[in-house]
Order: sequence, then C-alpha cells, then structure tokens
Amino acid sequence: MNKHNPLDNVRIVLSHTSHPGNIGAAARAMKTMGLGTLYLVNPKSFPDPAAIARATGALDVLERARVCSSLDEALHGTVLAVACTARSRDLAHETLTAREAAPVLLEHGLQGPVALLFGTEMSGLTNEETGKCQLLAHIPTNPDYSSLNLGAAVQVMAYELRTALPEAAATDAKVRPLASFEDVEFFYQRLEQILVETEFLDPAQPKRLMARLRRMFARARLEAQELNILQGMLTALRK
Amino acid sequence: MNKHNPLDNVRIVLSHTSHPGNIGAAARAMKTMGLGTLYLVNPKSFPDPAAIARATGALDVLERARVCSSLDEALHGTVLAVACTARSRDLAHETLTAREAAPVLLEHGLQGPVALLFGTEMSGLTNEETGKCQLLAHIPTNPDYSSLNLGAAVQVMAYELRTALPEAAATDAKVRPLASFEDVEFFYQRLEQILVETEFLDPAQPKRLMARLRRMFARARLEAQELNILQGMLTALRK
Repeated sequence: MNKHNPLDNVRIVLSHTSHPGNIGAAARAMKTMGLGTLYLVNPKSFPDPAAIARATGALDVLERARVCSSLDEALHGTVLAVACTARSRDLAHETLTAREAAPVLLEHGLQGPVALLFGTEMSGLTNEETGKCQLLAHIPTNPDYSSLNLGAAVQVMAYELRTALPEAAATDAKVRPLASFEDVEFFYQRLEQILVETEFLDPAQPKRLMARLRRMFARARLEAQELNILQGMLTALRK
Repeated sequence: MNKHNPLDNVRIVLSHTSHPGNIGAAARAMKTMGLGTLYLVNPKSFPDPAAIARATGALDVLERARVCSSLDEALHGTVLAVACTARSRDLAHETLTAREAAPVLLEHGLQGPVALLFGTEMSGLTNEETGKCQLLAHIPTNPDYSSLNLGAAVQVMAYELRTALPEAAATDAKVRPLASFEDVEFFYQRLEQILVETEFLDPAQPKRLMARLRRMFARARLEAQELNILQGMLTALRK
C-alpha cells in the first residue's frame, strides 16, 4: 500500500476473460495510465502468447498478475469494489459514470486497496459478481452500439483514474515570451500605414479592416519573436 | 454535414497505419461513441481480415472508410484539424489535453467537417503532418510508459468527444465561416513564394520560418473572410 499515490492501490480485476489478447491489451492500457496491479479470476488461458503480444511494453504488469480461483479471493483486502458495467440492471446499485467513479476510487485508494472489476467479453458481470461490489461504474456510449472491447474499457477507466489525480493537472507547457502591448500596437500602426500606401485600405472607406485584423491577431496571442517576423516581412514586402 | 449532431462531422484520420487490426479496433472504438467517419491515409494493408476481426459490430464503419493517398486529401474540406500526439515538440502548436480538445472539435464541428489525426503505431505523426493541423491534443499518460495502443488512443479521444457532447449542444455561439484546409494551404504556398521573391526567405536557409508562420496562423483559426483579406493584402503589397 502506498499512501502517496492512490493509483498504486487500484487493483484491476478481470473476471473469466475469454481472449488472452484482451488481458495483454488491458495490461498495456493500465501501464500507460500508471496502474500496475492486475488480478485475473479464472481466465480461460493465462499465461498465453497472445497476451504477451498485446502487452508490448507492459510485460511487467502481466508477470506480476495474480490468478485467482474466485472473485472473493481477488477482492480480498479491498476497501472498495466498483463493477464496470454496460448493462443497466434490474436491482441496480448506485451507478456512477466513469468520470464520477474515478475520484471515488482514488479517495478510497488513499486508505487501502480498491478494486475495479470487469466481466467477460460476451456477457459482462453476473448479478452475483456485481453484488459483491459497492458501486457500479458506467462508460457513456452510443446507445445503438455500446460494446466496448474489454481492453478499450480498461483504457477508458484507467484514463479517468489518471485524469482524476490532482498531480495530472500539472502542465508542462514551455512558456514563450509574448509580444508586448505597445509592440503590437506599433505593428498595427505600421501595417495600417502600409495598407493605405498600397491602396488596399481606403482611409475614406476603411470599413472594419483594421478591426478585423486586430481581432485575428488577438486570437493568435502573438509572441515577441513572431512579431519580429511579421515586422521583417513588412519591411521585405515594401522594398 | 449535420447541423444537429457535431459527432457526425468528426472525421477520424489514421495516417500510415501498420497493423490492420488497429484499424478494426479504431472502427469499433469510434462506433461505441457514435463516430462513423474514418479516413485512412496510405494504410499498409486495407481491407484486411485482421481489421474485420477486430471491428466486430462496427463493420459498417470499416466499409465506409475512405482510403486516401495523401494527408491533404484526407483533410480536404475540413475547418479544423487536430493532431493527436504523445511527443512534445520543439516548435509546438497550441497543445490541449484530450479533455480540452473535445469541446473545441465539437464547436467547430457545428460548422463543418473537423479532423482528428493519428499517426503510425511506432513513430506517431511527422512534423510535416502536425504542421497541417491547427491544434495538438495530448492524452495524459504515465510518463514512464506513455505508449497507448492506436485503437486505445482512438477510444479515449472518441470517449472524450462523446462526453463533451452535452456541452457542445448547449453552446449557441455566433459562428463565422472558417477557412477551409485547402484554402489555407494555398495561402501558405503563395505567401512562401512571395517571401522568397522578396528575399525575406532564403530557400537555401529557410530556417523554420514557414513552420513558425503556420503555427501562428494555426492559433488564429482563420475565418474565410480573414483569409480573403490576407490574400488581398498580399496582392496589394506586391503591386
């Protein structure tokens, strides 16, 4: 258990997976989002070359995967279990969207292991399985075709978990110096003067040409170096 | 063009895809989120049984997929092109997260076709390819292993688009017609030619001038009328 990164406390549980390729895809999806703990309840075939082929750089996740003979074994020690489900159910648990479920999982993950459970490719989870979970999570889909591939569903949930991490909000944008107000204004004046000289702009009928150009460059939020380029271009074009 | 559902105006463009299975997975991912328009730029193998096998219930998307011989062909007619990229780039375009990019795509999708572009499995998009886009979109990942499977990346972006749909429906912005991809490309060609003629741009030492200008105008998201003004200005300045 890691108190600092709740992702380390998230256990992805795949129940009765039919296609080993999907186990590999799930491992890769997990690792891309910083999840590493995979539990497999009675997989049809594991280990399997098809799983290895689809896992690519996430072989470590596959190697550490724990095969369980029952869901109870896979959920042992968890403080929250969430079932990922496409179908709406008769006697439904509280159902959250994937986006709503992610922070709930992480909050609980600060306290102890949490599980996110996925059923078989064909029929999903049984009512008995969802009955062992406290919450259902649902990925919003096209009502006419809601069948996400298992690996794709793990990818979306893992992505939502990562996105819900406060740290993920940190940006790494490189800042480039922006052009100053006065330099941009000087550019507009010079441009206007040149447009008048070349008779593109008629001062008697200016319409809204300069206003439109201002608006366009405003959206671009010109950088200092870009403004230098634009000024250089004007000089060259006037030679 | 559908004025009511901007998802119908989203074009998923896969450039130089190596593995046909990933094309099938992308088609399925798209359909689960209500996207149906797939463009393939020089795929290694298509049609292909591996694509069909992975598409399952999304064969209609595969069947309607359009194979193009160039990115220009695939972007023809679009009013916004967004490049999905994992790498951060030297002279980066404006980069948004997947979540930030989705509503931008949908807002533009109310006006006309928009493209979301994905590169090859191994090396992603080239700088030339991203240079033809106005925005970069980035799926936040584990910094130690950021390699999403292509189908999984399409799944996450398609999911974000679907999730952003209610917001887009709520916006009632006054829209001005945007310049089309091909008209903007034509402007860049003409501008470059004039800059060479005026010796502002030395073809022997172009440095990254055109890339910088593309990046600046990309941020502005030129409107059709603005592009006319810029072309008129060029003509006037050359007199």
